[in-house]
Amino acid sequence: MFYHDKRLQYPVKVDNPDPQFARMLQQAIGGIEGEIRVCMQYLFQAWGARAPSNKYRDMLLHTATEEMGHIEMLATAVALNLEKAPTSLQEEGAADEVVGAVMGDESPRHVIEGMLHRHILSTGLAAYPANSDGVPFDMSHIYASGNIAADMYCNVAAESTGRVLATRLYNAAHDDGMKDMLHFMIARDTMHQEQWLAVIEELGGYEGTLPIPNSFPQEKEDQKNNYNFYATDVNGEEPPKGRWTEGKSLDGKGEFTVFQNKPMGEEPKLGPARPDSGAEKQQMSK
Amino acid sequence: MFYHDKRLQYPVKVDNPDPQFARMLQQAIGGIEGEIRVCMQYLFQAWGARAPSNKYRDMLLHTATEEMGHIEMLATAVALNLEKAPTSLQEEGAADEVVGAVMGDESPRHVIEGMLHRHILSTGLAAYPANSDGVPFDMSHIYASGNIAADMYCNVAAESTGRVLATRLYNAAHDDGMKDMLHFMIARDTMHQEQWLAVIEELGGYEGTLPIPNSFPQEKEDQKNNYNFYATDVNGEEPPKGRWTEGKSLDGKGEFTVFQNKPMGEEPKLGPARPDSGAEKQQMSK
Amino acid sequence: MFYHDKRLQYPVKVDNPDPQFARMLQQAIGGIEGEIRVCMQYLFQAWGARAPSNKYRDMLLHTATEEMGHIEMLATAVALNLEKAPTSLQEEGAADEVVGAVMGDESPRHVIEGMLHRHILSTGLAAYPANSDGVPFDMSHIYASGNIAADMYCNVAAESTGRVLATRLYNAAHDDGMKDMLHFMIARDTMHQEQWLAVIEELGGYEGTLPIPNSFPQEKEDQKNNYNFYATDVNGEEPPKGRWTEGKSLDGKGEFTVFQNKPMGEEPKLGPARPDSGAEKQQMSK
Amino acid sequence: MFYHDKRLQYPVKVDNPDPQFARMLQQAIGGIEGEIRVCMQYLFQAWGARAPSNKYRDMLLHTATEEMGHIEMLATAVALNLEKAPTSLQEEGAADEVVGAVMGDESPRHVIEGMLHRHILSTGLAAYPANSDGVPFDMSHIYASGNIAADMYCNVAAESTGRVLATRLYNAAHDDGMKDMLHFMIARDTMHQEQWLAVIEELGGYEGTLPIPNSFPQEKEDQKNNYNFYATDVNGEEPPKGRWTEGKSLDGKGEFTVFQNKPMGEEPKLGPARPDSGAEKQQMSK
Amino acid sequence: MFYHDKRLQYPVKVDNPDPQFARMLQQAIGGIEGEIRVCMQYLFQAWGARAPSNKYRDMLLHTATEEMGHIEMLATAVALNLEKAPTSLQEEGAADEVVGAVMGDESPRHVIEGMLHRHILSTGLAAYPANSDGVPFDMSHIYASGNIAADMYCNVAAESTGRVLATRLYNAAHDDGMKDMLHFMIARDTMHQEQWLAVIEELGGYEGTLPIPNSFPQEKEDQKNNYNFYATDVNGEEPPKGRWTEGKSLDGKGEFTVFQNKPMGEEPKLGPARPDSGAEKQQMSK
Amino acid sequence: MFYHDKRLQYPVKVDNPDPQFARMLQQAIGGIEGEIRVCMQYLFQAWGARAPSNKYRDMLLHTATEEMGHIEMLATAVALNLEKAPTSLQEEGAADEVVGAVMGDESPRHVIEGMLHRHILSTGLAAYPANSDGVPFDMSHIYASGNIAADMYCNVAAESTGRVLATRLYNAAHDDGMKDMLHFMIARDTMHQEQWLAVIEELGGYEGTLPIPNSFPQEKEDQKNNYNFYATDVNGEEPPKGRWTEGKSLDGKGEFTVFQNKPMGEEPKLGPARPDSGAEKQQMSK
Repeated sequence: MFYHDKRLQYPVKVDNPDPQFARMLQQAIGGIEGEIRVCMQYLFQAWGARAPSNKYRDMLLHTATEEMGHIEMLATAVALNLEKAPTSLQEEGAADEVVGAVMGDESPRHVIEGMLHRHILSTGLAAYPANSDGVPFDMSHIYASGNIAADMYCNVAAESTGRVLATRLYNAAHDDGMKDMLHFMIARDTMHQEQWLAVIEELGGYEGTLPIPNSFPQEKEDQKNNYNFYATDVNGEEPPKGRWTEGKSLDGKGEFTVFQNKPMGEEPKLGPARPDSGAEKQQMSK
Repeated sequence: MFYHDKRLQYPVKVDNPDPQFARMLQQAIGGIEGEIRVCMQYLFQAWGARAPSNKYRDMLLHTATEEMGHIEMLATAVALNLEKAPTSLQEEGAADEVVGAVMGDESPRHVIEGMLHRHILSTGLAAYPANSDGVPFDMSHIYASGNIAADMYCNVAAESTGRVLATRLYNAAHDDGMKDMLHFMIARDTMHQEQWLAVIEELGGYEGTLPIPNSFPQEKEDQKNNYNFYATDVNGEEPPKGRWTEGKSLDGKGEFTVFQNKPMGEEPKLGPARPDSGAEKQQMSK
Repeated sequence: MFYHDKRLQYPVKVDNPDPQFARMLQQAIGGIEGEIRVCMQYLFQAWGARAPSNKYRDMLLHTATEEMGHIEMLATAVALNLEKAPTSLQEEGAADEVVGAVMGDESPRHVIEGMLHRHILSTGLAAYPANSDGVPFDMSHIYASGNIAADMYCNVAAESTGRVLATRLYNAAHDDGMKDMLHFMIARDTMHQEQWLAVIEELGGYEGTLPIPNSFPQEKEDQKNNYNFYATDVNGEEPPKGRWTEGKSLDGKGEFTVFQNKPMGEEPKLGPARPDSGAEKQQMSK
Repeated sequence: MFYHDKRLQYPVKVDNPDPQFARMLQQAIGGIEGEIRVCMQYLFQAWGARAPSNKYRDMLLHTATEEMGHIEMLATAVALNLEKAPTSLQEEGAADEVVGAVMGDESPRHVIEGMLHRHILSTGLAAYPANSDGVPFDMSHIYASGNIAADMYCNVAAESTGRVLATRLYNAAHDDGMKDMLHFMIARDTMHQEQWLAVIEELGGYEGTLPIPNSFPQEKEDQKNNYNFYATDVNGEEPPKGRWTEGKSLDGKGEFTVFQNKPMGEEPKLGPARPDSGAEKQQMSK
Repeated sequence: MFYHDKRLQYPVKVDNPDPQFARMLQQAIGGIEGEIRVCMQYLFQAWGARAPSNKYRDMLLHTATEEMGHIEMLATAVALNLEKAPTSLQEEGAADEVVGAVMGDESPRHVIEGMLHRHILSTGLAAYPANSDGVPFDMSHIYASGNIAADMYCNVAAESTGRVLATRLYNAAHDDGMKDMLHFMIARDTMHQEQWLAVIEELGGYEGTLPIPNSFPQEKEDQKNNYNFYATDVNGEEPPKGRWTEGKSLDGKGEFTVFQNKPMGEEPKLGPARPDSGAEKQQMSK
Repeated sequence: MFYHDKRLQYPVKVDNPDPQFARMLQQAIGGIEGEIRVCMQYLFQAWGARAPSNKYRDMLLHTATEEMGHIEMLATAVALNLEKAPTSLQEEGAADEVVGAVMGDESPRHVIEGMLHRHILSTGLAAYPANSDGVPFDMSHIYASGNIAADMYCNVAAESTGRVLATRLYNAAHDDGMKDMLHFMIARDTMHQEQWLAVIEELGGYEGTLPIPNSFPQEKEDQKNNYNFYATDVNGEEPPKGRWTEGKSLDGKGEFTVFQNKPMGEEPKLGPARPDSGAEKQQMSK
């Protein structure tokens, strides 16, 4: 179960509110690279963790709970960036006098053009769980496979795209408070990338975990097609050489080769449409 | 651009059609761990690849094109498994005499209970791009970040969950043809897991790629918070020790430590609701 | 604006309630081939109709309003089919004595296995706007393009897949009341298929409408590539001959030919990744 | 920010694992009436709370944090109910000997028929954030309007449908552990229904809050149409009498009456389609 | 069943077409606070209404039918606001001479920046069923629970957020015709808020309806946890006092108290991963 | 199975990169009228094709494979249009010197206002499978019904809305390279409209295919209601005359007439709510 502290994990300050930047921050809340995703992903991985011990379950709970606080920081940052946003398309500006100084010499209409419109219409100038183009977060992005190694790579993927996003936000930002908040979040993403990879190391690295799942008896897989790069260039041009085209495989269990792809199967032939199946008569056998 | 061959990449045979297994196979078509996802993900990564050379773009195109053929194999397998499926809830069975022998002594109604209903109602006994519970595939799952290392980990994640899925399907299957097809696909997933990790190795492994993105000057991130595990246990209980709680970080740029999480920020205080913003009067300053 | 009559457009009777058939009927309510789709599609086409006269707007409103009543009939049929559905997994059956006789000798658990679970858990034994696998209807399926000919073909598509669905439901049904309701709906779909095609005829048929949109000056399109079938077989095998490979085109404006597809463009070369764009250093120019 | 305790808020025990009940429980996790919804809704309402004081923000954080623990309980219950679920369609049952005794004399195939297939294929026998028909939770259901009264009614709606769901699950359950867990959750929903309504009372009840938003000057709304019930029966039949057809309005600001609906506007006439807008020529003015 | 009148329920006039306002209006069509939602919600509640009499079914049909006409008004308003919208990014403006005077001195490019792009690309300058950020309406927002009291609160929630939205649109608008249309819609929302609350009153108010569902024997719920506010502040700080922390509960059936939350359950311990379940070997028991 | 050629099907050149046009092009990639849709639709129709011969299967594969190359062209065009896009909201422009000349005298902030934000934040200046408002493509739009005639009309619908979109993009474009690419795509859409209609002709035109599905014995449908236009005008005003109100039906099997709609059914009366079904007591029979 959970507890909260009213205070934020890290300071969130905005000197120059910018509704356009509020929009950008939404990607870190409700985007596929964002914080709801990692928080919920780690929680569901923890809650479903099956293993002889609770070690990884515990670790996941620690970090999931940390991420909860990151969503909070970002939601707060969005609300602060919207504090002086215009709410009216009228030329004379909003009836509300707090607005006007915002965004230099931009007219209210111009500022609104770049905003998420639901920041004005649906939330009363606050964050909501959608991305920077307004698409709501969809929980199908919570990857929790029941396989610890697969899950760790899903987490590395999430934290890698997450830190890429955070640095892009940092580069786009002009406010010192926002840059400070983001430089903290970027650091946490660094740690989390390492953390999930460290689990892989602890499980024995490539040799101890690959191919995932390692519980499937590898002799049951097609031994002729598990370490060869399939080339599909129509002109038969050789693919670029790389670590994956020759040499021992990373798991030490095979040798990389190149295979020019070609059909091993036949042209499929389905049975004709059956009566009562809603097809046209012409699709049925005569 | 692309070409096709009418023949399948690998043989697809079904001796004992099973509409319930057709449903399961849908997960490998339209599930988040499935083949549409990897095909489209590699295509979009290729098409957006920015780099001094086209090497990785090329490699991605080879494998994306291979995956296209995997969707085809699975769609064919679904159609074949549906060949004798019942289409009627009537006790006497379908009007169509080809049905009846299917699934041992199951009544048509029982067989339909476990089927995806759109296999009967929407497709005329064929595959469609949805998962095994009927949820259509949603293209937000195409991860292509513009960062080669992040993308590779997204691909490892996809192929890891993909091979986990393929082995689960193998374990659930009872038909020799299906097991043969799957044992090929499992092998290809093995190769692809290795392939994307081999790119990471080629780029210099952890030291050469971490933290992702490595183009962000690391001195700009919060140096006090980038290699410490945050513990959030309310009782202050120490988290389990692991590779990520002590020792040199994987990228060789820091030292892992543990930090008992606590608020560094203040309780946030948003401005009161503004007139004209649709709030209740009680939310406005007096 | 709109009015209602409490009575149904056509009688809806269910003698033998069948919760499994209630599930199937959902496809005709909230499926992409269903009645919400056509109702809303015709409404939005009507409401956006731009033309010198209101003739097509009017016609669309008539039929959209008719479709509204079809959703109502189906929703009623779902509720009636659920009247005796079990609500408990307990072996002894539901506490409620009205249940029990339902579905012959099926145990409550068996009946529930084939049901949409939200029929029990979310609606209190009534319809909801989702398809037969429980996926909610998504309004992106409302096709209203602003082009009258394109819209008519979207409508033919909707009514064709709609009548295919209705006949599949008819074939699956065992209850006389349900067959009666469906034989009416199948008839209405017949009319609507014809109706939208009749608009095309009235606009001048293929010659008067194709290529859609006919307002784009056809001399601006690529005159070498507008009536030739592109063949992509990798072995250069000739495609099957058909009405579309030779002879005058349907609009009378061209001649069908076959073209063996080949690249006319170059390999694309994007600029390298820019600093500050979140890529890996290795993707940047040196 | 947040903390966690490894222990659950309330005991979760399952004596007789039932994979079918695991499916039902998913509705309380990822359904629109479920716990992710209320947790996230209260969090976003708290994080965006604008008011002279932080009182309601604080209250919302307390309850949101409580709900977090409810998701955890349910996810645990799902995993426990799946402990002995079959994973294979083979007649002889799963290779795994722990299975077999589950669900009385049901064959593995029968048990699987009623299961969410992703419980087998995607999660390794654990919960995921989707509803009981497998549809992932979509964050557009997080209602946080920036208006405290509107939000409270959204919360009452959530807790009412939530408690309806919880009692339906209770009625469907056969396991004492599950009934115990649910009788706790039902109790919490009782409190939460009251809690949000108590905020309305504290704000002055109907008179103090209606019409929502009360900050909009009511003299600006159409005074002739704000307290009359519009009747749309095509036969002009009088609507049923009720508290809303006569007497003083609940907010004390008007008098309920009945109005037979009729058009006050004209038939709309849009401009013809413009050149370059992609319409057919026939839609343009001549 | 249903009928239509070509004329609008209320006049819709636009003197100064504004494509940016057209975008805003989309929220009232396809947003979660919009008119499709209430129309469809009331229809499905009506169609599934189970009760000794049809009284509430009838009332719901009246109002659902009214709402249908509101969608029509808004769709008309969107089309009229788009009448002079630019369709080209070329500096010289659109080829079409009707454009140009629109939006004062804005260049076509500037106007397009703030528009929904599908207004240009997909609809030919007309409305579509999506919100103001272009997200299509998703029918999972149709709340119809089968419980009359829960449904009424869902309706109050819809009409409260709906009137909040309508007043925000009113405040953002600059056109007299639009303000007139909205002042009518705001009035209708006032009535509908009252109407659904009046049903609650008629059912006996808080005492007659709470806790929802009142048909569940309250003695079966956890009597120790149904009227106490759970506090989760990690520092044990007392929550703010409110109507919900002390005094008689609103339904008169309990007494509000405060409870400092703490775990009553144990740390959960799931069984280890099973063979054949797709986990890593390390997750299995030894 | 499939092969690729590194070169593009047709040249893609961009002289004046325009991030706003990149956004527009997304509609042709991930919009419902776009190329992913047709590619996948033709593939799934091919893969599920049931008929005595493989003729239509083959044809569909040719064209599906062609469409794959169209997605590639568009994705390339998007990336090229984003080459000089700004990535920072700072007034002084991006740190990156390649930017600045873009879009004439627009400030970076202005350019960003009209951009899809995920082009900056999620993809590193490349395409992704979403529409021009950022909504990801959803595979429920893949229409493959198992009925060849229905499918052909679905394809005509797709290519009609597709060519409408392509001409709108052509009209909006200002870059010669983009106009050249689009004039090719417009031509291909012309061919594909004809191609699918030619299949209908080959199957016997209206008489040979209607009503779809023609395998359902037409005598089973309601012979009194299959060729009459239902009028729903509340004032009984006669609907506009058209090809569909009189004369022989297009399939030659009936005669068009007009029918003034009226209820043929009764007011529905559902059973009262059952105990244990989660309703209010007031909904149950006494």
